[in-house]
Parts: sequence; structure tokens; C-alpha cells
Amino acid sequence: MGLNSNRVDHYSGSAHATDQSSMPSSLPLHTVCLPPQKSTLQKLRHRLSEVFFPDDPLHGFKNQTRFTKCVLALKFFFPIFEWAPNYSFELLRSDVVSGLTIASLAIPQGISYAKLANLPPIIGLYSSFVPPLIYSVLGSSRHLAVGPVSIASLVMGTMLNEAVPYAQDPVLYLKLAFTATFFAGVFQATLGLLRLGFVIDFLSKATLLGFMGGAAVIVSLQQLKGLLGIVHFTTKMQIIPVLSSTVQHRHEWSWQTIVMGFSFLAFLLITRHVGMRKPKLFWVSAAAPLVSVILSTLLVTLFRSKLHSIATIGHLEKGLNPPSSNMLYFHGKYIGLAIKTGIITGILSLTEGIAVGRTFAALNDYQVDGNKEMIAIGLQNMAGSCSSCYVTTGSFSRSAVNANAGAKTVVSNIIMASTVLVTLLFLMPLFHYTPNLILAAIIITAVIGLIDYEGAIRLWKVDKLDFLACLSSFFGVLMISVPIGLAIAVGVSVFKILLHVTRPNTGVLGNIPGTQIYQNVNRYREARRLPCFVILSVEAPIYFANSTYLQERILRWIREEEEWLAANNGSSLKCVIIDMTAVTGIDTSGLAMVKELKKILEKRSLQLVLSNPGGTVMEKLHQSNILELFGLDGVYLTVDEAVADISSAWKAEP
Amino acid sequence: MGLNSNRVDHYSGSAHATDQSSMPSSLPLHTVCLPPQKSTLQKLRHRLSEVFFPDDPLHGFKNQTRFTKCVLALKFFFPIFEWAPNYSFELLRSDVVSGLTIASLAIPQGISYAKLANLPPIIGLYSSFVPPLIYSVLGSSRHLAVGPVSIASLVMGTMLNEAVPYAQDPVLYLKLAFTATFFAGVFQATLGLLRLGFVIDFLSKATLLGFMGGAAVIVSLQQLKGLLGIVHFTTKMQIIPVLSSTVQHRHEWSWQTIVMGFSFLAFLLITRHVGMRKPKLFWVSAAAPLVSVILSTLLVTLFRSKLHSIATIGHLEKGLNPPSSNMLYFHGKYIGLAIKTGIITGILSLTEGIAVGRTFAALNDYQVDGNKEMIAIGLQNMAGSCSSCYVTTGSFSRSAVNANAGAKTVVSNIIMASTVLVTLLFLMPLFHYTPNLILAAIIITAVIGLIDYEGAIRLWKVDKLDFLACLSSFFGVLMISVPIGLAIAVGVSVFKILLHVTRPNTGVLGNIPGTQIYQNVNRYREARRLPCFVILSVEAPIYFANSTYLQERILRWIREEEEWLAANNGSSLKCVIIDMTAVTGIDTSGLAMVKELKKILEKRSLQLVLSNPGGTVMEKLHQSNILELFGLDGVYLTVDEAVADISSAWKAEP
Repeated sequence: MGLNSNRVDHYSGSAHATDQSSMPSSLPLHTVCLPPQKSTLQKLRHRLSEVFFPDDPLHGFKNQTRFTKCVLALKFFFPIFEWAPNYSFELLRSDVVSGLTIASLAIPQGISYAKLANLPPIIGLYSSFVPPLIYSVLGSSRHLAVGPVSIASLVMGTMLNEAVPYAQDPVLYLKLAFTATFFAGVFQATLGLLRLGFVIDFLSKATLLGFMGGAAVIVSLQQLKGLLGIVHFTTKMQIIPVLSSTVQHRHEWSWQTIVMGFSFLAFLLITRHVGMRKPKLFWVSAAAPLVSVILSTLLVTLFRSKLHSIATIGHLEKGLNPPSSNMLYFHGKYIGLAIKTGIITGILSLTEGIAVGRTFAALNDYQVDGNKEMIAIGLQNMAGSCSSCYVTTGSFSRSAVNANAGAKTVVSNIIMASTVLVTLLFLMPLFHYTPNLILAAIIITAVIGLIDYEGAIRLWKVDKLDFLACLSSFFGVLMISVPIGLAIAVGVSVFKILLHVTRPNTGVLGNIPGTQIYQNVNRYREARRLPCFVILSVEAPIYFANSTYLQERILRWIREEEEWLAANNGSSLKCVIIDMTAVTGIDTSGLAMVKELKKILEKRSLQLVLSNPGGTVMEKLHQSNILELFGLDGVYLTVDEAVADISSAWKAEP
Repeated sequence: MGLNSNRVDHYSGSAHATDQSSMPSSLPLHTVCLPPQKSTLQKLRHRLSEVFFPDDPLHGFKNQTRFTKCVLALKFFFPIFEWAPNYSFELLRSDVVSGLTIASLAIPQGISYAKLANLPPIIGLYSSFVPPLIYSVLGSSRHLAVGPVSIASLVMGTMLNEAVPYAQDPVLYLKLAFTATFFAGVFQATLGLLRLGFVIDFLSKATLLGFMGGAAVIVSLQQLKGLLGIVHFTTKMQIIPVLSSTVQHRHEWSWQTIVMGFSFLAFLLITRHVGMRKPKLFWVSAAAPLVSVILSTLLVTLFRSKLHSIATIGHLEKGLNPPSSNMLYFHGKYIGLAIKTGIITGILSLTEGIAVGRTFAALNDYQVDGNKEMIAIGLQNMAGSCSSCYVTTGSFSRSAVNANAGAKTVVSNIIMASTVLVTLLFLMPLFHYTPNLILAAIIITAVIGLIDYEGAIRLWKVDKLDFLACLSSFFGVLMISVPIGLAIAVGVSVFKILLHVTRPNTGVLGNIPGTQIYQNVNRYREARRLPCFVILSVEAPIYFANSTYLQERILRWIREEEEWLAANNGSSLKCVIIDMTAVTGIDTSGLAMVKELKKILEKRSLQLVLSNPGGTVMEKLHQSNILELFGLDGVYLTVDEAVADISSAWKAEP
């Protein structure tokens, strides 16, 4: 392998001939290295650290004194210690403004989302008080506005209500809701502690787009109950029962509710549009829900006698969150349902919370650690389940308002929680005459933005299979159920990965004249095939799932090349080079395939050489003794060196 | 991009500096091409043809006259027309010898395997008559010896017997066996017709190794019933019930059976060993089962009075396969069981048949088309289910004997079937006193070779995760059940693919001095990092499952490089090059990641460029408008050109 070799130029007059005049006339050849030797234990350690600690979270701890390490650990587990020492009056001013702004949004949304989960409205306010306080101590995002969110509320409401309708047994329903919240928290914190955060990555953006869209459609249609004033409405969640229930109960429609409901809906949608068009006017959309609540409550209170057909929230207890740890439900018939609901709402709320946290961190140039965030959200839910709260996470809409309003730290969450506290202690009676229709309008305004049809069109343009995943989660949620819709979409996504591995791209490479570059001849018109060689690239790891396919496909490439040669200039194929650059792994089935291919080609007097096998591939070829079959001059570092060396060997022969 | 650029050499005195004196002083730069434009329909067509017709089965039909096409089609569907016209007396002589040899093996094995499937022994002979005849017309392998096989017999026996013990309702059991065979055939032929042959690839070699080993252990232990003379034996298949049943019924053990059984077992194992050691003496092991059957039958017949405790086969009907299409069972309680058994035995027997066919085709330098073989095996089973046969396929052990005995075409199967025909018509009474113990000994000898512990050790050495898949299918079969064992093993294999995609390798590349080659600095000691650059390679498609990981990991590589630079020579990082050669695909989550990474690095004043993105990746970058973010000089064909161009741009600046 150490020999210097001259470039081939004894092939001429063939259609394949390349112009190699600009090539250097001699090049040293390089041997392909094995990766540095490691024991099984070292490899396992490396693998595990890549799986669980890809971000090397403890890198700041290296080479520090013990005291510094303690301080760092405190800051690591309680990010509040990170920013608290440098907290200034200026920061506080920003945080107070943004905290009050999100409170004005959080109070009406909290009440509405609790309705969405079929829970008493006050649970929504409880959930906007305790969890944000816990998050402000543990969380590392500076812009996350914590509280109930629409998707998790919807999913919890659906899954529980289909089994145990709230109207039938409100106490059992509440128990199950708190228990599901507890399990959601345990699941989230466990994922974070075990550093299994990547589990949520399996809900791809495309899947979530479809899922959110489907959920938003269902939720909006369900709000027809409030907007039309229907009293008896289906508890089912599929689109067909919801629509037919709306039509079936048309005698319950109330024109006063309809007029008032759609007017406020129009108001909210217009202010939302204004806020989106001109980011400086974000406060218009932020204040609109509270304004609508106040206005509609005033209207109903003043014209009570004429508007008696409009349903209102009714009496709400004053006072702080009552403890609810005695309501957790750890045995009995519905425990499975509670755990399942907890896991699904847990994973969905995590996905939203982490995505929101990452988005605003990237926009403001700081980092959030996904696994730490999971622990924070998990603990906030566990604590919440013991203080009459249901599942909470970082809300996308409120976090956006929070960031726009100039939030600098999580103190804005503390301000918001304090405002909710004041409301809970003193202002609850004011909500007595708040009409349900306004809650429906607020929910529709909040979820309508989730229907991102432009995003779906972009998916179609860029990636058809992603579009399919999106579509299947959309229709799965709309037609069947939330868990099945999600399962189908994850299935499609995983199938996509498997398809990519099962049927990888292969292609013939050619030399770009005047360079040492070899590229696909179909893509680069200037790339020229070399006579007597066929150079193939394989673009996937060689695994059990594709080894048979690859063997057949490679033999077909060779057959096609031979047929072409036979038809054109009669010269014969002598050497097959497989460019392994993109072969990122190989398993025992793949190794057997390489061995068999080598034997088959040897029988046909064709030389098979490999170019640039990667570290792990090289190691496995070595361990399985297949490298010996190829010998020292059967594996080259680049295609170019392989061509040069083999051609010069032929030239040297008589 | 068209400008010529000079090589960098203005970095000196730094630990990074590379010796580039041997480089050519100027190189033209190459633009990265988009792949040729194709419509969605064309792409779909290409994709489908890669998925379903990777081997281009109709390539011989191109540019032929209509008549030739008809002849080719006939040959395509009935391979018998391929070889029949050239069949000679010489070929016949070889085929007769090999056909008689495999018949001497097929008759005792057929009887034994039927016992293994809890079926009457004669069903094993029926199954060695009709299916081989069908296969000889349709099959394309020249060496496959068709008939019942151990694994499929075992699986069918287990799955049916646990639900409907043969002893309880023999007719129902027979009905279910024929129905399962029918469904196995339908499933196999459908897979072949739809060209879904790759489904069997998901049973990787490692999985099958474990599965076969586990099944062989269970089968061997179950034969203790016959070898020890136990009358009442468990119908369960897990290792613990089988062992405890053996011990529990020790009062039923018969010393005559034990002495005779273990003597013949020793004889068979020794002849098997001889046959394996000296391939020329293959006939020793091939003839041994028949010799044992004859010897033991003679012994029992002669000393009938003294050996009355030895159980024998008993009366067998003379005559050909009775029709059984009236016994197929298409409704009722057990239809689900029959379909499930059919699919599992179907897939297992396909796996064995196709693997055997491919192995001998590769050894003898011809090709078998997996999908056509599936149709042949499927039709042979459908026909079999209507003529009192159970699941059959190509047997590994008999095919090996067939090939060793000099078989040249499938005529050896016809010869074998004719011998079985003679046996069925005239010789059945001879088996009356054949002891069951000899069948047990034949089964053990046949399956013991499936326990390939050396193969398992090789797996451990080469690929730990393959070893895990092997182990889990081994213990799954041994401890739980056949379908669950297989499901676990397939799960482990799929998990392995996902893990590879979820946590791909990344690494820092450096230049190998004096070349244009960039390689991983950990693997190639001579590779040198370049000052101001960090060159990263990503070795996987960028998908939803890894985009978050990759973003974090890339940022960590950059951070580590910056820290190293700060600690060592104070020079600063200016440019990040990502080598996309091994990035074989990208989805919308991956595209979003690339976009965000570009933005994050821009905020830090770091330039991000891509090198050698593949065809599909380039296309998607283009479609999603991310390419515009990078601009024309943000994407290079090689790392080398990127480094050269960017360095010279810096040099040109003041």
C-alpha cells in the first residue's frame, strides 16, 4: 500500500475516457485506519453517554474547587439561584408589566380551559397559581408562562369524560383528573431524571402539526355548545357525533346566546388579527379576553331579566387552592385510565412546554436543558395534583405575550400567580354572571391559530411522507381518538425511518474531470464513468433490513454496466469499487452480505474493493475477519486512490 | 463560485497548522448540483419501483419480439420450461441418485416431523409427495428439497395443541392444521405477488439464530417423551413445564425404551458427525435414519414379546393423499387461531425456504428470485392443504444432502416424490412396528445442528446489539412462546435501527497533510485540525428523531473547540463546516434544525457552510428555501474547496 502509483491514462478512444491531464502525476496512498481500540466497557460507556448526556450537562463542573462545585450544583438544580443575585429593579419593572399582562390573559383562559377539560372553572384558576410558583424556582426558561393549556385540557377532558362523564359522578371525575395529573408529573419527572427526553422527539413537527390541527377543529366545534346555548351535548369527541349532536339539539339553540356569542367571537378574532399583524399592538390581543369577560359579565348582570336564557358560570368559592392529596386514586377500576391519561397528557404537555421553552431560548440566545425542564414541569404537576390543580405546562400563546411584553425572568410568573391569588381571594363573586359563551369564544380564539394549513402545504411541497404523517394524525384525531391518532402518526414516522433504511439510495459515481472528486453520474452531468470500473455508492447503514436488497441492487448495477459495455464498446468490466462513505453502520447480516458479494464477484473474476469505510464499519469488518478476504489492497481511503492504485497494478501486468 | 482561489497558508505557529506544501496552488471550485428535476409522479414511480422491483425482474423482456416475450413469460412463470428442453440423460442420472438419497432421508423425517406437529405420521408422507411435485413445476431453485421441516412443524404443533389438544378432538385438530396450511400458502403467495418479499428480511440472521436455537432446545427436550417412553406428557412448550413433566412422570420411564433410544441416538449423532467432517461421506449421515428405522423395526418385530413396553407407530393406511379441501375451516371459534398459526408458520417456512434457495444458488452461481419463490412455496402449500398435507418448504438439511448427492435440477424432487408414492402405495404396513423412540432420535439429530452457540459467540464479538436480539429471541421462545419470542426479537432489531438514527455518530474532521482528504481526527492521528475552522461530520439522515440531539451535539462540538482554542492559543473560531456526505436524507424537522442552527451561529458571528449535501438533501434545502439562507457560497462540493475558498476570502479582506 505504500507504493507510489501513476495515474491511469491508457484507456483512450472509449466513451468513458476522462481528461486527467490536470491531475498530479503521483500521489502517496493512505491506509484506512481502524478506530482507536476500546474495551467493550469503554464503548458501552461512550454509547450511554451519547444516549443520555449528549449535551454534557456537567461540563461546567470540570476543574472546579469543591465549594464552587456546590454552588454550581445549587444553581444547576435551582436555576433561581443563577439569576436572583443579579436581580435588579429594572428587571423587576419589566417583569411586573409582563406578569400583569399575562395575568389578564391567564384568568379568562384558565377558566375556559378548565371548562374544556370538563372541570369546574375554579380549577383553572387554582392551576394558574401553584404551578407557576413551583416553576419559577425550578425552571430554566425565562419566558415560559406556565398554566393550563388547551391541548392537554382537551385530551384530559376527552379521555376521562368518555369513561366517567363529569355529570354522572363529579367527585370520581375530579379524583381521576388529579390522579392523571399526578401520573403525568411522575412520568415527566422520570423522563427528565432518566434523561430520556428524546422520547418526545418521536412526536415530529409534522405529526404535531396534524394533531394540533385536528384537536383545534374538534375543540372549536365542541364550543358550538356554548356559542349556540345547547344544554344537552354529546360527550364524544369524534367529528361526526359532535356535528350531529349540534344539529339534533337545534331546538335548544338560543338566539340571545348566538348573537352575543358571535359578536364577542368576532371582537376577539379581530383583536387577535391586529395583534398578529402589528407585534407592537400585542397588548390589544392580550387584553381582549379580559375586556370581553368584563363587558359580557356587565351586560348579563345589567339585562339579567331579558337575557335569562344565557347560561352563566354561577357561584364560585372564594379562597386559595384546597389540598387534594387525599383525592388521589391509586387502586380500583379506573386506575389504568388515570395512568394512560396521565402519560398522554404528560407527553403532550411536555412537548408543548419544551418546544416553547426552546423557541424563546433560541430567540433570546440562551440555552434550556430539555431534561431539566422536564423535571421542573414534572414536579410542578406533582405538586399541582396535591393542591387541586390539573395538568399545566408552558403555554405557547401566553409565553409569546410574555416575551412581547418584555419579560426578563421567571419573576413574571410570580407576578401572574400573585394576581391570580388576589383574584381567588377577593374577586371570585364577580364571575357569577360571566356567560359561558364568552369562555367558548376565548377557547376558539386560542385554538384557531393551531390550524396551520399553510404549514401543511409547506410539508406537502418539501416532504410527502411528512405530509402523510401530518394527515394521518389530523384525521386520526378527528375521526377515531386522540391516543390512536397519535399512535398512527408515530407509526407513520417510524415507518418512514424504516423505509429509508430498507430501501436506501445507491448510485453509480463518476470522476469530475480534473479533480479527485467522484460524484453521482445522474446528478453531475460532467462526472465521467471510468472504463473497466464501476463505482457504486451506498447511502445507508447495511443492516438486516436492507442487506438482501443491497446485494440484489449492486448485482443489478453491475449487470446493467456490463450490458451497456457489451452493447457499446466491448471492453469488459474488471473492478467494482463500493464507496462506503455514507455507510454509517453495519450489522452481522450486512457483514455476511459483503462476504457473499465478494465471493460472487470473485467467481465472475471481478475485483471488489471498498473505499473509505467508516470507523465502526472498519472495526466490524476486522472483527468478523472479512477484512482478511479483502486483503491490504482491497480497502482504500478514497475512491480516487483506489482507481489510481488498481489501474497502475493493471498497467504493470504484462 | 467560479473564482480560482489560493490555498491558505497564512496560519503558522499554531498547533493546528498543516503542511500544505504538496498541494496544487490553485483549484477550480465546483457548484453543488441539484438532482435532475422530476415531477411528484415520476419520483413516486421511481420510489415504488425501488421498493417493489429492485431486481428489475422484467429486464430480459426489453426489446424483444412479441413471440419471444410470450416464451419468456412462460419460462418466467413456469421455470420448468427453462430447463426441460435441454434436459439430458446425464442430468437425469445425477437427479435419480440424489432423488433416491433424499427420499431415504425424507421418509423417516416426514414421519418424525408430523409427530412433532402432533399430526398422524402419515400426514408427513403425504406432505412429501404433493408439494415437491408442485414445486418442481413452479420453483426456480435447482437444489431445494421440498417437504415438512422441523421449525414449522414445531410451531404449528405448539400453537394448535395449546388451544385444541390433538388427543381431545383429532378431527378439529386436523381441520385446523389444514386450514393453517392454507392460510400460510395464501399469505406466502400474496407476499410474493405483491412483491413484499422484504418483509422476511425483518427476521434478521441474529434473530433467527436465537429463535432456531431456542426452538431446538425445546424440541429436543420434548423428545424425552419418546426417548424415555413417557405416556402422559405436557402439551405446553415452555422449558419449565416440559422439564417438570419429564421428572413428574418418571414412573412411566421404560428401561428398554431408554437403552434402545439412546443407542440409536448415539448411532445417528456419530454418523451425522462423520458426514459433517468428511463431506464425501455425506451418504453415511443421509442413509443413517433409514437404516435406523429398518433396524429398530426389525428388532421390535423379532423380539416383540420382550419389548412390549416400547411404543410403536401402529397401523398406517395404504394409499395416496385423500382430498382434504372439505376439511378447510373458514368460520367459527378457532378461525383466528388458524390464521395466526398460518401466518407465523408461513413466514418461518418462507424464511427457511428462501434462505436455503439463496444459499445454494450463490454456491452454484445462479440466481433465485425471492418473490417468485414465495409464490411457488405459497401455491405448493395451498395445493397441499387440499390434499392432506401440512406446511412444507425447502429443508436445509435435505437440500444440503441433495446438493452433495449431485442434484442438478428439481427432477430430484420428482424422483423423491415417486419413491414416497411407492412407499405410500405398498410399504406402509412395514412401519407398523417402527418404535416411536426412533422418531424422537431422528428429530433430535435433525434439530441439534440448529443450536449454533459458536455463531452466538461470533455475534457477541462483532455486534453486541445483534447478540441481544439473538438472546431475546432465544429466551423468548424458551420461556414465553413462539410468537412473543419472535415479536420481541423483531422489536429489538427495529429498536436498533431507531437507536442508530436517534443517536448518530458525529465527529471533528481534520486534514491529512499533503492531501485533499479530511478524516475524523480521533481515528486518523495524522489528521490535523485547521485554525479558525471546525469541520464536523454527521453520519445519519437528519430526522425528527435526531434533530434536537444533533443541534445540541453540534453546539457542544463548537463550544468544546472554542474552549480549547481559548485555553491554548487564543485564536478564535470563525467558520463551521458541516460535512453532509453521510447525511442521506432530511425531513422537515431536520430542515428546521439546519435553519435554526444557521441563525444561532450567525448571532455568534460564526459562518456556517455545508459541504457535499446529497441529491435529496439538496433538493429539500432548495424546496424549503433554506438554501437561500446559505447563499451560493454557503454550500461547497468538498470540504477542501470550502476551506480553500473561505480562507482566501478572509485573506482578501483587509
